[in-house]
Amino acid sequence: MTNSTQDQITIRPVQPDDCENGFFDILSQLTVAPKLHRSTFTALVDAQRAANNQLTLVAVNTHSRVLATGSVFIEPKFIRSARPVGHIEDIVVDKDSRGLHLGKRIILHLVDYCKTHNCYKVILDCADENIAFYQKCGFSPKERQMTQYL
Amino acid sequence: MTNSTQDQITIRPVQPDDCENGFFDILSQLTVAPKLHRSTFTALVDAQRAANNQLTLVAVNTHSRVLATGSVFIEPKFIRSARPVGHIEDIVVDKDSRGLHLGKRIILHLVDYCKTHNCYKVILDCADENIAFYQKCGFSPKERQMTQYL
Repeated sequence: MTNSTQDQITIRPVQPDDCENGFFDILSQLTVAPKLHRSTFTALVDAQRAANNQLTLVAVNTHSRVLATGSVFIEPKFIRSARPVGHIEDIVVDKDSRGLHLGKRIILHLVDYCKTHNCYKVILDCADENIAFYQKCGFSPKERQMTQYL
Repeated sequence: MTNSTQDQITIRPVQPDDCENGFFDILSQLTVAPKLHRSTFTALVDAQRAANNQLTLVAVNTHSRVLATGSVFIEPKFIRSARPVGHIEDIVVDKDSRGLHLGKRIILHLVDYCKTHNCYKVILDCADENIAFYQKCGFSPKERQMTQYL
């Protein structure tokens, strides 16, 4: 038995099978993320693919186990000559799979997705302790995020 | 001639005519926002209405002049039992129309839109000098916004 290495890992769009392959275990390391009913999950995955304005990536090992995930969605804009903005959301790497640069690899793919959609910028919100990581991914601190829970 | 007062002002979704009624003059007080060709603008307005996941509001006076605007879009989520998140964007009030609470009124409408979409939270990013204003609208500072220009 060998440990996972970077080249045994595939990064691809989320698919319905990921519901049973640890996708929600990984998300639960980030926030409240109870496992969805398979039909609900499949409907969300299908809707995302059909809309073509949102992409959720997963990093999986050779056993199809999800080790990391990240999402982006594309917001249409009236400003900036109608060039959209990409919003990166819900980046999380399994606590036992750190050091493989999975987070950075996913982010670079998500930024590429924004480029193909002609975005003028990509934004995300992060905790202060993660600023240095996102700076290594090409981001700079700018404004303050404000939140209202409903 | 009287000054505009709060009850002479209507808040409603953006419509194609706003292209000629100062919509881009107002957005230009926020950021780079050259006026779009009318056909491009109409297509964006129509697409927003069809998608039903994004709402741009304008405050207009009795001459249909745009005095303020603000937008929100709804992001589907896998986390939080698939409850979405509302993202408020591009809030701007004409510099000559401050003090009428147009910004706050638009934000409250946008938050209501998020409630009708079953969002579990609403977020936005703002400059440090606007934190106090958004606190009055029910928001609290949370994370740091990071930006990458493409």
